[in-house]
Amino acid sequence: MISVVILGAGNVATHLFKAFNKVEQISVIQWYNRSTDALKTYKKEVEVIDDLSLLKEADLYILAVSDDAIKPLSSKLPFENRLVVHTSGAVGIYDIDKKHKRGVFYPLQTFSKTADVDFANVPICIEALESVDYHLLKKLAISIGSPTKKVNTDQRKVLHVAAVFVNNFTNQLYRMAHEITESEGAEFDLLKPLILETAKKVQDMSPYMAQTGPAKRNDKKTLRRHLKLLKDQHHTDIYNLLTTSIQLTHGRKKL
Amino acid sequence: MISVVILGAGNVATHLFKAFNKVEQISVIQWYNRSTDALKTYKKEVEVIDDLSLLKEADLYILAVSDDAIKPLSSKLPFENRLVVHTSGAVGIYDIDKKHKRGVFYPLQTFSKTADVDFANVPICIEALESVDYHLLKKLAISIGSPTKKVNTDQRKVLHVAAVFVNNFTNQLYRMAHEITESEGAEFDLLKPLILETAKKVQDMSPYMAQTGPAKRNDKKTLRRHLKLLKDQHHTDIYNLLTTSIQLTHGRKKL
Repeated sequence: MISVVILGAGNVATHLFKAFNKVEQISVIQWYNRSTDALKTYKKEVEVIDDLSLLKEADLYILAVSDDAIKPLSSKLPFENRLVVHTSGAVGIYDIDKKHKRGVFYPLQTFSKTADVDFANVPICIEALESVDYHLLKKLAISIGSPTKKVNTDQRKVLHVAAVFVNNFTNQLYRMAHEITESEGAEFDLLKPLILETAKKVQDMSPYMAQTGPAKRNDKKTLRRHLKLLKDQHHTDIYNLLTTSIQLTHGRKKL
Repeated sequence: MISVVILGAGNVATHLFKAFNKVEQISVIQWYNRSTDALKTYKKEVEVIDDLSLLKEADLYILAVSDDAIKPLSSKLPFENRLVVHTSGAVGIYDIDKKHKRGVFYPLQTFSKTADVDFANVPICIEALESVDYHLLKKLAISIGSPTKKVNTDQRKVLHVAAVFVNNFTNQLYRMAHEITESEGAEFDLLKPLILETAKKVQDMSPYMAQTGPAKRNDKKTLRRHLKLLKDQHHTDIYNLLTTSIQLTHGRKKL
């Protein structure tokens, strides 16, 4: 049995709590937040506290708080030499106060407040300074069904940037497609199977191999036609930059 | 029974042939290509021809050829007043020679040579000048299990541009994520569940509502950190442009 204290009340904290609470191998013994209001739904399931001096001894303290809060909160913890981890993709392991055993437990996935999370689809990137701590974190991840990977701070930071490309930026391309289709009263819904297929394709094939379309073919006529159709300068800028990007990747253009 | 002649030997032609050939309601009576070499695998299943004068009478002729070939090929067909459709997202219905009954049967999906296609995931955008032709095309699409939508030429053209955004451009973002992760020896594979989840999220939620991340939150510290990590000027350009785009959409920035 792994005893865990969760600190923080955001999406990651909440989804971790729900996942931990479902499995026998893990016991969440306390859940801390600056204000217990955010946690009141869970008061019957776990001891909820807003006072760090009430923290009990546990195998593991998970700081699922904002990036900027990790360092000060870790310093304020009224104990030392226990395992304290954060869940951030962007913050180094050494941001955790050195009085603790330190680690990182970074779930590489997008979480929303409402939707349920299947942790089988959430790779956990693990970092620890001591092998025994690494193995505890790995055991914790495996208990909730997550794949795990040992990832150092530099690797985690580039994964975090890359996640912005495949998640936030990709979603913004979907948004632009929505704007473009709506401008002619066409249905964005018609693009949904294509969106899904594009994501599925790179599960088994490299994005390089998966590329198709007018930019890759250097089909100048279609490229010109598309640019003529785009009415928003901002869409045109994105079209030009990403077309150039594809042509650089596939040798149609040289810098 | 709908009798069909397919013209062309590319991915769309091939996947349509395979789908049509599976269902009882459709009979592919001939398959034409400039060279029958490309079609030799199918000679036992269908009459394969490379001479337009051999074309038989059919309910429908499908020009699944390159955009530029649609107009000249439609003119060369040695008959008139029969239903002739093309499968392109970018070409107008009036590019088909006016001696024919004209239509468009545009499958909005990405096709690769190897992977099998489930037409339930391929919306067919249908356009026709006569109601009777529209209904025949709709019946054809339904026979292979595809959802259908009446889409006029202007709508189809913007769908085609929008498809480039959600398919080619999105795939290029995946490619950049691949480059970024590899630069630190991190595994691109760790991003695959996130890629899939991002695509799934907008199946039930608008891209506007689905957006998250540092650009939307205007988290300047993380934005700065990310820019510092990116070593390739080209990645930096994309990062800046898409961050600005998200901030324009979500009211963090005004033009």
